[in-house]
Amino acid sequence: MSQKLVVHYSVHNQDAHEAAEALRVEQSIEFPRELAPEWIQNEVVGQVLSITSQDESRSEVSIGYSLGSIGGEIPQLLNVLWGNASMLRGIKVRGVEYPEELLATFRGPRFGIDGLREMFSAPQRPLASTALKPMGMSSRELADMAYTIARAGFDTIKDDHSLANQPWALWRERVGMVAEAVARANKETGRTCVYAPSLNLPSDQILESAREAVKLGATSLLLLPGISGWDTVRAIAEDDSISVPIMAHPSFVGSLVNAEDHGLTHAIVFSDFARIAGADITIFPNFGGRFGFSQQECLSITQAARGPLGSLKPMWISPAGGMTPEKIPSMIDIYGKDTACLIGGALHRGDLFSNSSAMVEALEKLASA
Amino acid sequence: MSQKLVVHYSVHNQDAHEAAEALRVEQSIEFPRELAPEWIQNEVVGQVLSITSQDESRSEVSIGYSLGSIGGEIPQLLNVLWGNASMLRGIKVRGVEYPEELLATFRGPRFGIDGLREMFSAPQRPLASTALKPMGMSSRELADMAYTIARAGFDTIKDDHSLANQPWALWRERVGMVAEAVARANKETGRTCVYAPSLNLPSDQILESAREAVKLGATSLLLLPGISGWDTVRAIAEDDSISVPIMAHPSFVGSLVNAEDHGLTHAIVFSDFARIAGADITIFPNFGGRFGFSQQECLSITQAARGPLGSLKPMWISPAGGMTPEKIPSMIDIYGKDTACLIGGALHRGDLFSNSSAMVEALEKLASA
Repeated sequence: MSQKLVVHYSVHNQDAHEAAEALRVEQSIEFPRELAPEWIQNEVVGQVLSITSQDESRSEVSIGYSLGSIGGEIPQLLNVLWGNASMLRGIKVRGVEYPEELLATFRGPRFGIDGLREMFSAPQRPLASTALKPMGMSSRELADMAYTIARAGFDTIKDDHSLANQPWALWRERVGMVAEAVARANKETGRTCVYAPSLNLPSDQILESAREAVKLGATSLLLLPGISGWDTVRAIAEDDSISVPIMAHPSFVGSLVNAEDHGLTHAIVFSDFARIAGADITIFPNFGGRFGFSQQECLSITQAARGPLGSLKPMWISPAGGMTPEKIPSMIDIYGKDTACLIGGALHRGDLFSNSSAMVEALEKLASA
Repeated sequence: MSQKLVVHYSVHNQDAHEAAEALRVEQSIEFPRELAPEWIQNEVVGQVLSITSQDESRSEVSIGYSLGSIGGEIPQLLNVLWGNASMLRGIKVRGVEYPEELLATFRGPRFGIDGLREMFSAPQRPLASTALKPMGMSSRELADMAYTIARAGFDTIKDDHSLANQPWALWRERVGMVAEAVARANKETGRTCVYAPSLNLPSDQILESAREAVKLGATSLLLLPGISGWDTVRAIAEDDSISVPIMAHPSFVGSLVNAEDHGLTHAIVFSDFARIAGADITIFPNFGGRFGFSQQECLSITQAARGPLGSLKPMWISPAGGMTPEKIPSMIDIYGKDTACLIGGALHRGDLFSNSSAMVEALEKLASA
């Protein structure tokens, strides 16, 4: 019959049958099931597909939700996956099967892995990516920094995600000056380096600002789905008047994956959500850096970013956070070449141009390895 | 000198001095501090105000962030408070002091407690609130339900938060029919019952849909900040062409408050954020219902909703989730009369009109108690 959105839960320290019954109602009609008309009980309420006990403290529950209950839009998809469940105790979504019919309603990444390889004339190598910082620098200083890094051959330069409308570098001024500097460098090098301003902006200005950024010369965009919403990524990614690579930043979403017995998996949050919304590059904190993600968690993100998901294009991963050039070879060993290596502060220890050039060379060498 | 945003953290199972150093940089310049110009180290990087060890496993750290680093906008305020920190281990924000200068840039609740008391001609009593469900009902059925409840004298009727654009009751049709039904009931009763459609909608339609809802006769609006973003609440709440009471629903935000050693407090998420964004009513799961919030957590939300916060108006609380009419007296005992009692499914056990009327009578009796 009709396809279902299948959600696999781990249920901790509670009766699995009671939890399954609670979840299938809570995430659909949120109403005493026995009081609902029979057809709603059968067709709208989630259907328990399986319950398996792992041990005394943990069970696995799978529930299928009707596509009708989602209505084809990302906000309600998020609601079904985690809305009220976020307030229950001991529930972890450990996997989701998205039906083809649902995935077909989303465009996903506009460029994806192949699209950016073509854009950067980089058939093989990992990408060189960085962020403009520290906050406090003027627009002119940030533009000069971008010029130096672009001239060294970097592929992507983004604003630090926290750059918004601080007094030291107001958004409009900054975007125009950095875009101009990167375009000037591109003219000199003959390469394509994209600049992604941060759309860390008021919600009612964000779509218009995305269009304005492109008019000001921005050739990519950075979004913060944890703050602006995943559906805002979708709206911007599928706007044909914008049509530039979209990067998704992990700010504010760490709490969704922080616990073993609560939340969603890293793969769902950093890959599925970002890719369904249309990000071309998903940024996440690399293991061994400043943050607490494990190697296994990072690899699960990677696998989901590249694996099959309807006809949505595979997405670049961009492990970041306290990365240094020395770590690049082992990163590529682990993640493979479809990786946008995001190095921030470490480029600034010593000469920025030399460090940036060395990084580009190292990545080119890895391409032929 | 200049005012600071002071954030009080609990730091778990790690060196407090290292954590403080990491936090003050991570939540501001996200760049090796020693490489930043000296004025940025002094004025932009967060300043450690105090570090106190509670016991071996926990310390308290307070950091002051410059107002410049926020730039006066909610998305970047959220970034400073919890952006990258969400991906660190063992960090809990246990309190925030918002400087007056920052709060003065936000309008906050348009109506607040007094405004809604006036709107509902209810100088004393708690409010009677409900939600239209279950999903699967047609727009006509939901409108009839709303008519019955409004005729019984309820103050607020909202869409179930999960109602979006499901095939059974498309958004535009539903909003028009329910608004008409509630207006008809108001004409008969001479009372004011407001109807809040759910703005669980695509991000690029949400502001326009809020305006359209009001044109269709909606007299309140329900927003899901965990999915649409808190700043979307702000944009809609401060739009003078909308100008209706705003309700904030807790969908998807439970993960921010789920852990003792990670996240934000209930008061920050359910009160500060909602109130700064301009919600007039904050909905949260009552203790003793289907969800895991404790009485103490619910009371901390209540206190923050009503306590001083610059010149922002106090906000209604709406404890919900598995509530029954029998629990009302003890709820009011605990929360006081400035409470919008949200009862959903339980109204439908037996006759809807009788149950709704009984609830209204009970609340009126409590007003004079």
